[in-house]
Amino acid sequence: MSTAPRQLNLNLFIYPNGHHEAAWRHPLAAHQRVLDVSFYQELAQQAEAAKFDAVFFADGLGIGDGVRYASRFHLEPITLINALAAATQKIGFIATASTTFYDPYTLARLLAFTDHLSHGRVGWNIVTSSLKRAAQNYGLAEHPSHAARYARAHEFVEAIGRLWDSWEDGAFINDPASGLFADTDRIHPAQFSGEHLSVAGALNVPRSPQGRPVYVQAGSSEAGRDFAAQYAEAIFTAHQTLESAQAFYRDVKERATQRGRNPAHVKILPGLSPFIGSTEAEAKALQREFDELIQPDFSLLQLKNQLGLDVDLRGHDLDAPFPLHLIPDNPDQAEHSRFQLVLDIVKREQPTLRQLLQKLAGARGHFVLAGTPEQIADHIQTWFEQGAADGINVMPPWLPGGFEVFTREVVPILRQRGLFREEYSGSTLRDHFGLPRPESQFAPALAQAQAA
Amino acid sequence: MSTAPRQLNLNLFIYPNGHHEAAWRHPLAAHQRVLDVSFYQELAQQAEAAKFDAVFFADGLGIGDGVRYASRFHLEPITLINALAAATQKIGFIATASTTFYDPYTLARLLAFTDHLSHGRVGWNIVTSSLKRAAQNYGLAEHPSHAARYARAHEFVEAIGRLWDSWEDGAFINDPASGLFADTDRIHPAQFSGEHLSVAGALNVPRSPQGRPVYVQAGSSEAGRDFAAQYAEAIFTAHQTLESAQAFYRDVKERATQRGRNPAHVKILPGLSPFIGSTEAEAKALQREFDELIQPDFSLLQLKNQLGLDVDLRGHDLDAPFPLHLIPDNPDQAEHSRFQLVLDIVKREQPTLRQLLQKLAGARGHFVLAGTPEQIADHIQTWFEQGAADGINVMPPWLPGGFEVFTREVVPILRQRGLFREEYSGSTLRDHFGLPRPESQFAPALAQAQAA
Repeated sequence: MSTAPRQLNLNLFIYPNGHHEAAWRHPLAAHQRVLDVSFYQELAQQAEAAKFDAVFFADGLGIGDGVRYASRFHLEPITLINALAAATQKIGFIATASTTFYDPYTLARLLAFTDHLSHGRVGWNIVTSSLKRAAQNYGLAEHPSHAARYARAHEFVEAIGRLWDSWEDGAFINDPASGLFADTDRIHPAQFSGEHLSVAGALNVPRSPQGRPVYVQAGSSEAGRDFAAQYAEAIFTAHQTLESAQAFYRDVKERATQRGRNPAHVKILPGLSPFIGSTEAEAKALQREFDELIQPDFSLLQLKNQLGLDVDLRGHDLDAPFPLHLIPDNPDQAEHSRFQLVLDIVKREQPTLRQLLQKLAGARGHFVLAGTPEQIADHIQTWFEQGAADGINVMPPWLPGGFEVFTREVVPILRQRGLFREEYSGSTLRDHFGLPRPESQFAPALAQAQAA
Repeated sequence: MSTAPRQLNLNLFIYPNGHHEAAWRHPLAAHQRVLDVSFYQELAQQAEAAKFDAVFFADGLGIGDGVRYASRFHLEPITLINALAAATQKIGFIATASTTFYDPYTLARLLAFTDHLSHGRVGWNIVTSSLKRAAQNYGLAEHPSHAARYARAHEFVEAIGRLWDSWEDGAFINDPASGLFADTDRIHPAQFSGEHLSVAGALNVPRSPQGRPVYVQAGSSEAGRDFAAQYAEAIFTAHQTLESAQAFYRDVKERATQRGRNPAHVKILPGLSPFIGSTEAEAKALQREFDELIQPDFSLLQLKNQLGLDVDLRGHDLDAPFPLHLIPDNPDQAEHSRFQLVLDIVKREQPTLRQLLQKLAGARGHFVLAGTPEQIADHIQTWFEQGAADGINVMPPWLPGGFEVFTREVVPILRQRGLFREEYSGSTLRDHFGLPRPESQFAPALAQAQAA
């Protein structure tokens, strides 16, 4: 057992202009740099200077309904993190990629190479893609059901794990004198054959520095939690209350334990979108500036999607109570992972439609906090120490300033309180997260142990 | 019409240790850096300092038969070029990607983003993947036929072109004041539905700096030439004689003209692998050093694959004449694009098996020339001026020195002769190649003209 005090993990979650849905309209946001690689390289360098664990990018495989109103589009994560890794030395990068719409051989190569090129700094956020129009972009007549997507996801993770393990660590010989480049006795075909996919061969690249990328997950449905408990080494999650986060934390750690995993190797990082001011009033005033830039037509479209509604919410009185009767009794909640969260807000706070939209505008259901640096640090410390979080998924409301102020004002307080590292102790993402490097499942010792 | 003298295009084709199959065994090659991104970044920077047009990476979607003997493995091109683009400013990058095993939506996003992140420096080498075991890595019972692969390739290029055009250039508004992020009237669904694939939606990223990546092709079969004449803006090709290269050049330019294309917008770049010495004898001695490191078991395996043979060539007397009777009368030549080239060598030079292996060891059938810098420059000038080439695909026998000596000794001679640029005149790969930036097929002017 380590005797070092438990330390926070901090992840920077980058949305192009920041997480507030109106960020791109505020003069503080660098909206004109939204497609400029140097903008993201500077943010990654800033996160590295602050000793963050990783930078994370979400993804979506189709154009969003609200593209007219707001910059809710997704940067392609894999190309981007390679451009950012080339401009940094230590910080990790987590790319979202879909088990429904990638082939395992393609993704295995892309991420194995990213791990090589970055010297072991890659994580994979495993998603099954809830966006219905994605299926049509991939030639499918209809979007696979939640159950079918998760069934394929299980096969996918199994298959891609075999690919990443297919070269044992010692298989890459590269000895000019003997002329032996690879020890083919230590390269193993994946030989995975499932109902949804199959993969025959070995990968065509030596095992990567981390063995395989860090597995990250963000599903909150029942199936998503179970999947996370089985595979995830880090989990992003959204909670509006400490109690909800605590219950999630307990539940997932228990599920992992029941599966024979070390719960310490499942890092749970709730999201936090902080508006920071030198007084609480100043912070709240700043938040109001952003909220006033919201375009209700976009917000209503987003809410409709989050709740899986069939009706158009536009035209409803924004200042009347939220029209609870519109919410279906029993939606396929799995398809809409924010459904329960939004419903809880409505029941707890009884907001008007406008109030609900503003509540969600900050970070799509993630916790938004406007306060002083001390108040932000207090929140993080409370969640960290009271069984709700191993770290925080930092979601700046706008960029770059909304992140810069966090690193300048909040991170030093976390350090003074002994909660966050002064310096990296390793150089891979596994090192930062305190995760073990997995051995290849084909390695003789492991294969023997498993056979016994 | 431009009155500037016609200029060479120079492309650096990087194989991990260099193109000679035994390069990795020679002390001049940096075999220990074969998986180190900084090695390739330095090469790209060197190519950029020499004002090369582009750096190119081949690819393969399965482990090679000869991985035991030699470093014939492929670096994943898309992740790699993003890491290299981040370390350079002007030079282009050409990534190989398969129309058989990618989905168009995935590849469209990967390459569109690479074009954004590199500020317009990307080319796509379009391949249909001849490697039979690739199919098994993608869950197919058998490898699609050559004809089926090309049928899908045509659909793929059509579909991905629609995706890259789906945002007109003016669709990305990004205006915070009005709150209009995108003009959805100028974003068009791809609406491609073919026999092999279909894609519904628009891409979820604004049109990239080059409109679309430069289309590159390297097929030499009948179907490959036709495909190239229809789509390719740059072509890589292998020839052992000036006459063969001239015939290919004439043929492809004619096919392009017949399709209504400007043949000047189809750049033809034959491969050249140069061993350079201060005397011809010194260059030839250097080549011999590499040839002596060949491992015949690997070379025979590679030859078997190049010829599509079913028999194992190992055990044949290396110093007897090449066993011509083993070559099938009528192989599916399209599956083996080097078949005719090897057959021509055998008929022309009547080599022993060992001599043939050495002939092919340098660059798998591409032209290998050992000589002084002047001799190398003479060769390039001759092919350039006598209707065999618009430029050269430079294939260093080993790396990094085999490229460094080319830039130091040969490039200045080409400049003295007025054949190659002193400085870049533009900043995109289209600029370097002198290719026009295509207008979106959905742009009103173009759509109108096509309807008329």
